[in-house]
Amino acid sequence: MRGFFYPRTATGSSSLIPSPPWHYSGDLLTVEYRTDPARVAELLPAPLELADSDPGAVALIWADWQSCSTDRAELLDPVRSQYKEAFVVVRCKFQQQTFSRCVFIWVDKDFAVARGVHQGYPKKLGSMWQTRPHPFAHAAPQIGPGGLFGATLAAGDRRLAEAVLTLREESPTNGFVNGHPMAHHRVYPGIDSGDDAFAELISSGASEFAGGQAWRGDVDLKLFESPTEELARLEVHEVIGGYYRQVGVVWNGGATLARLA
Amino acid sequence: MRGFFYPRTATGSSSLIPSPPWHYSGDLLTVEYRTDPARVAELLPAPLELADSDPGAVALIWADWQSCSTDRAELLDPVRSQYKEAFVVVRCKFQQQTFSRCVFIWVDKDFAVARGVHQGYPKKLGSMWQTRPHPFAHAAPQIGPGGLFGATLAAGDRRLAEAVLTLREESPTNGFVNGHPMAHHRVYPGIDSGDDAFAELISSGASEFAGGQAWRGDVDLKLFESPTEELARLEVHEVIGGYYRQVGVVWNGGATLARLA
Amino acid sequence: MRGFFYPRTATGSSSLIPSPPWHYSGDLLTVEYRTDPARVAELLPAPLELADSDPGAVALIWADWQSCSTDRAELLDPVRSQYKEAFVVVRCKFQQQTFSRCVFIWVDKDFAVARGVHQGYPKKLGSMWQTRPHPFAHAAPQIGPGGLFGATLAAGDRRLAEAVLTLREESPTNGFVNGHPMAHHRVYPGIDSGDDAFAELISSGASEFAGGQAWRGDVDLKLFESPTEELARLEVHEVIGGYYRQVGVVWNGGATLARLA
Amino acid sequence: MRGFFYPRTATGSSSLIPSPPWHYSGDLLTVEYRTDPARVAELLPAPLELADSDPGAVALIWADWQSCSTDRAELLDPVRSQYKEAFVVVRCKFQQQTFSRCVFIWVDKDFAVARGVHQGYPKKLGSMWQTRPHPFAHAAPQIGPGGLFGATLAAGDRRLAEAVLTLREESPTNGFVNGHPMAHHRVYPGIDSGDDAFAELISSGASEFAGGQAWRGDVDLKLFESPTEELARLEVHEVIGGYYRQVGVVWNGGATLARLA
Repeated sequence: MRGFFYPRTATGSSSLIPSPPWHYSGDLLTVEYRTDPARVAELLPAPLELADSDPGAVALIWADWQSCSTDRAELLDPVRSQYKEAFVVVRCKFQQQTFSRCVFIWVDKDFAVARGVHQGYPKKLGSMWQTRPHPFAHAAPQIGPGGLFGATLAAGDRRLAEAVLTLREESPTNGFVNGHPMAHHRVYPGIDSGDDAFAELISSGASEFAGGQAWRGDVDLKLFESPTEELARLEVHEVIGGYYRQVGVVWNGGATLARLA
Repeated sequence: MRGFFYPRTATGSSSLIPSPPWHYSGDLLTVEYRTDPARVAELLPAPLELADSDPGAVALIWADWQSCSTDRAELLDPVRSQYKEAFVVVRCKFQQQTFSRCVFIWVDKDFAVARGVHQGYPKKLGSMWQTRPHPFAHAAPQIGPGGLFGATLAAGDRRLAEAVLTLREESPTNGFVNGHPMAHHRVYPGIDSGDDAFAELISSGASEFAGGQAWRGDVDLKLFESPTEELARLEVHEVIGGYYRQVGVVWNGGATLARLA
Repeated sequence: MRGFFYPRTATGSSSLIPSPPWHYSGDLLTVEYRTDPARVAELLPAPLELADSDPGAVALIWADWQSCSTDRAELLDPVRSQYKEAFVVVRCKFQQQTFSRCVFIWVDKDFAVARGVHQGYPKKLGSMWQTRPHPFAHAAPQIGPGGLFGATLAAGDRRLAEAVLTLREESPTNGFVNGHPMAHHRVYPGIDSGDDAFAELISSGASEFAGGQAWRGDVDLKLFESPTEELARLEVHEVIGGYYRQVGVVWNGGATLARLA
Repeated sequence: MRGFFYPRTATGSSSLIPSPPWHYSGDLLTVEYRTDPARVAELLPAPLELADSDPGAVALIWADWQSCSTDRAELLDPVRSQYKEAFVVVRCKFQQQTFSRCVFIWVDKDFAVARGVHQGYPKKLGSMWQTRPHPFAHAAPQIGPGGLFGATLAAGDRRLAEAVLTLREESPTNGFVNGHPMAHHRVYPGIDSGDDAFAELISSGASEFAGGQAWRGDVDLKLFESPTEELARLEVHEVIGGYYRQVGVVWNGGATLARLA
């Protein structure tokens, strides 16, 4: 039986996702802000703790991706290659090291959901939109001073977040909250009880990364309530900044930090 | 941290799926046929074997569901309650017992994908449509002699299957292929290598079941090729029959048959 | 060149919609309420006037349809047959006769949009969901006392309306606001200026109608703001009632009431 | 009553589309080929005739757009701004002048459908995907020699077309078939009969245009049958070439060439 993920078959060609490495080209629109650190702590299961510095910092990141496996076959059938996402990252501490951690994430393709199951990103389906830059300004901003970008997130037919970013100047980074290795839980609930059949804390990050010039600017951010989402519980106390950056990334697995069940 | 599935939070209200039991009301359109048993065997990883009798029997089932948790909250926000699916079931043998096994399945909501991860159904996203019966025949068949139902399945912007079912007579069953307890693999690929971090063979089935009168009839079935799917590899050698039945079901967990990794 | 609608070709088989008559089977969930009659008047272009009696009455109707042309071909490829909609109806007066008028409507298929262009329903795309009754109550209400139905409407990734209906008793009608012939404008803006190239006021209605027992009950209705929609401007001052009814309908054209441009 | 398109209201803010001018930034992937001119002639209603030169030339064009009205508000809520389309263009002759004419087109947003109704583009909904270039090549081609782009079109859950384009060299144009003013029919079927209530032949084109360097290359094109589409009837007899170009466009109305009904 072959296939990295289900369904496994004799050929392996049905697998919802291929074996890593996975390759990505995309645009990141990042909004960083501070919330009540107690709300962040609520999202950090043991053995994770709040980060030592700026423990209430949150990044809400929209990404517009094209992705593929090493043979790049998906790029020629781009329904299998393009997807959008929005995700919420906080920081945490494990064994005195600082990690980033994705606490909420929405994507719009099934292969992206499956990657999330593997990587420990808690992916749901959503509807994400972010303004695209384009060489011709007729209906597009430029990545430069005054560049105006909007971003929205909805799930379950409810709008969850919207942001407007006005670029001001070049920036050495596109934020700091998502800048550490990721510490994620990978959990499989037991088939016969309330206990997890499998649970581990893993770490992973990009195995290759290339980034264009980052830009920062002013940002307006709104979060909305939903009965099935808790993004708005991470209330915006203070906006840190907004960022835009184009990147190329390779992801190629991670490492187990702690086996939990 | 609370929540049956990810993302787990202090309240548990963000969990993509609630704890079982899960409740379902829906309509099943089933097509059963025989293919080359060798093609079925390809989809049975050890320790499963081909069923002793009629080992090439396949059921392709369309289902139009409304589902909810015990508090029925999803029913009042039906974007969270209604979904459609199409799935392929074969039979197999484990320790001399006959089981049903879902080898391919497509659904159209994220909560259904997550249930599949839990139950061992290898769910992808797809676009499924099946004709609905209705009390008024202006644009609907009746569940009775001559009732004409169509069903289609697409994924990745390609049509994968289509069927037309003409009901002829009452039937004691809506098929036999999906009539056993399910034997499914639950597998979590390792974060750091090609080996599975967790794998088990589980069994599960309905904890409650109620069914209306089943009907059977003539059926025309077509399967189509796709570079990412292997449904068409289960070639139609002989149609067994087509069935229609309305059902109510409760699913409430299963049991581990064998720990594999 | 053949084809009722575009694109017209030698065969006519590409036409987005076939010639009427069009046949429908479906379920209607209706909420009727009173708003400020001045807000209704805003939506009545000359030569229409406010209805004489209960001029602020509004019906917000969700419909879950299966539809087809006379040869019923769409029923066997139900992606072309099933659609959902939500629409807002008010009443008006033209030449001393009372008409119903759809002022806002959202659907989820292109053929439904095209029918609306023809019939004068101002259709946009939206996401509509309404609870379905089912013979098995595991995850479904029954059409009867205590039957609990939810309905939601979203467009542009924003929720616009949601309702919860609890059925109480049989009712002689499923409301009165949508009970008259429809008076709709059919307008084609000029290609070269701000003036309409074509405009007429037409009347149409069902050429055949069959309805099951109507039920009425208590209803909770919420409307939400959107920058591109004005449904919420029809504020809910007083709920009249909620209704549920299954119907079969044929639509087969209408008549011009007045040529306007 | 205000609003360029339906629904018209007191404020005009509900109109599905604003008044022109409409502004576009986007990427065009064009495939040109020759088919039997008789098949083109079938799509040219009187008073149009086949073009004098190369009358069987066809352009199948994928476009990935961001668009907005003059106040650019849609750019900050990009669900209202971004859309994709694929369309088929042939050439024709009217009063000795050569025109381009869109004979089939699919889009994925309702505002794009409404623009088509206005402009005479026969728009249906579809699912279109085209590979995007990106500064980082991890999962993206570059617009340059060897750049490899895929494009697909589906509607009604069936794939209708797919193309693979390999860029080879700079080109003075991105094709010639779509290079003339458009000659389109705008038709409103009568509400009471089979006759059109309104019909005219109009001409329109870009009021402003800016284009980047065009590239041409080798292309592989496949068309597929569908019971509701006739794209495959325009059989590929000879591929002319494939092209890629980024453009900025303004559309601001057109002119009536002939009133037909």
